[in-house]
Amino acid sequence: MRILLDGMGGDNAPAEIVKGAVEALAESNLEITIIGKEDEIYAQLEKYEYDSQRLSVVNATQIIENDDSPVKAVRRKQDSSMVKGLNMLKEGKGDVMVSAGNTGAYMAGALLILGRIPGIERPAIASIYPIVGGETCLIVDAGANSECRPRNLLEFGIMGSLYMEKVMSRRRARVGLVNLGVEENKGTALTKEAFVLLKDSSLNFVGNVEAREVPKGAADVIVCDGFTGNVILKLSEGFAMNLLKNIKKKLTEGATTRVGALLVRNKLRELTKDFNYEEEGGAPILGVNGHVIKMHGSSGSYAVKNAILKSAVFAQQNVVEQITSAMEGVESAKQAEEV
Amino acid sequence: MRILLDGMGGDNAPAEIVKGAVEALAESNLEITIIGKEDEIYAQLEKYEYDSQRLSVVNATQIIENDDSPVKAVRRKQDSSMVKGLNMLKEGKGDVMVSAGNTGAYMAGALLILGRIPGIERPAIASIYPIVGGETCLIVDAGANSECRPRNLLEFGIMGSLYMEKVMSRRRARVGLVNLGVEENKGTALTKEAFVLLKDSSLNFVGNVEAREVPKGAADVIVCDGFTGNVILKLSEGFAMNLLKNIKKKLTEGATTRVGALLVRNKLRELTKDFNYEEEGGAPILGVNGHVIKMHGSSGSYAVKNAILKSAVFAQQNVVEQITSAMEGVESAKQAEEV
Repeated sequence: MRILLDGMGGDNAPAEIVKGAVEALAESNLEITIIGKEDEIYAQLEKYEYDSQRLSVVNATQIIENDDSPVKAVRRKQDSSMVKGLNMLKEGKGDVMVSAGNTGAYMAGALLILGRIPGIERPAIASIYPIVGGETCLIVDAGANSECRPRNLLEFGIMGSLYMEKVMSRRRARVGLVNLGVEENKGTALTKEAFVLLKDSSLNFVGNVEAREVPKGAADVIVCDGFTGNVILKLSEGFAMNLLKNIKKKLTEGATTRVGALLVRNKLRELTKDFNYEEEGGAPILGVNGHVIKMHGSSGSYAVKNAILKSAVFAQQNVVEQITSAMEGVESAKQAEEV
Repeated sequence: MRILLDGMGGDNAPAEIVKGAVEALAESNLEITIIGKEDEIYAQLEKYEYDSQRLSVVNATQIIENDDSPVKAVRRKQDSSMVKGLNMLKEGKGDVMVSAGNTGAYMAGALLILGRIPGIERPAIASIYPIVGGETCLIVDAGANSECRPRNLLEFGIMGSLYMEKVMSRRRARVGLVNLGVEENKGTALTKEAFVLLKDSSLNFVGNVEAREVPKGAADVIVCDGFTGNVILKLSEGFAMNLLKNIKKKLTEGATTRVGALLVRNKLRELTKDFNYEEEGGAPILGVNGHVIKMHGSSGSYAVKNAILKSAVFAQQNVVEQITSAMEGVESAKQAEEV
């Protein structure tokens, strides 16, 4: 598998991006192309030993910044690492693209350059949600589409299901719809109509899921509009951080010895890892016509390495092809029904 | 202050409701009227000593169940404890009504019997959100209106602000709008328009609040549509329970002595109290023309007692009158602008 890596995207680029690439190289037989300002990237590469046969650098003179307006940036910065990488993906010069850069621009660029998979109206960002003490689940949409139509939620279910089954080895992924209550007639116009579409699909739809059940692993794929997905992800993050901070304070003030306090701190650090997004290896942009992975903007080398390794599975399993076939099935079923 | 208490609403009625009433009586000089099946209520009252001068029972032969259809139940069960209590409130036979019964029916009943405050299009349920290690905040709407117009969010801000200032003694309550990002132009059509209305109001509007900041106490009043409010409240509850369960497991398995494990358990129990909704004393239904408090369906006597005590402050401060005046101000400002 050939990885295209945006060397300039994210808060810690290019240092942590390059370091992550070198680490991924050591743990795999992947080929990696880093796209970005070549002098800066080579300056970082000099620090490490690596298999230079499997790592190449492609120069790109521009950078899309986090505060750049997405569509404008993609149109004007044709020689940016992000746009160049997406063009290389389109041209078949790599199997999957990975970036920690401006999310809006990445989404816009993927749409403009790669296009949508036929039948998908709204590509989505799918984010892995860590369940403390258990398995992960996938939130689709995690924020790309703040306003949705019922049909979009069905698309999210189909795409998320395939990702969890093919990349995360989940059998017959359970799909749940975030809603106000478990009853079929609960919710907004959007969730009521989406419920019917999901129920009538061939997905393993487990019905409405109240937000309370999400952190308990109620489903493998959590379907919702992007506004709700954003609230779920960010609230969980803020809640966990605040709670852990207070637990640490409370428990260490009560520890009778310094050894006890240290023990508690170490145990809590292990738990923090359980809902560390870094472990999970980036979020796929599903529904565009190419394998595209978005990393968190603050990714360090460890997250970069994990995202690269996971992206290889994503491309290897050819999830784009799987979604394309699935959508053809949806279309022909619809036509058969209309006849 | 005269409290009207629905003796038959909630999972633990009438036993825990009656016990809570007796406890509230002991800690205050309130007058309480319990409405419900009098034989059952007297049977509970027999267990306790209390000031019978300040406690009376009004018989009601029907009960609105949790699975009753709200509007139908209110129309048909005229002799239910809930409908009877709301009618007594309307007739001035009490200052505030408290119930742990069917939320939808309570909301519908309050609307039908008491009506709306002029200028309020959509009454809301406002729920106290406990911030671990800090102050509480108020989520409006907590689930009564799953779909809203921008103007409704302004109403939620005005009502929530007055509640936090008058009942929770918060000075110049900070009002925040749940949104995808902090920038003014972020979000859905709803949040973008609501932002402008809130900014142009006389509220202490602190702008958009990302969900991540809610558990950190970003604002005193968190304004959002009821779908989002429901997600915030239920996700927090589920997340906290799951996290604490795992922390307990992790920390006690590592404790070197039984004393250590016990210490950890006790400390965690203290923390659990920090986000215990029971402490907070019920959620006001804001925007109806009367003081109405909803308790959690699973309320035990401790929660009932707290809700009764808090409801007295709610009525004492005459929040309904305050909202009425505030809305008159909004209307005359609007007219002045139009002239």
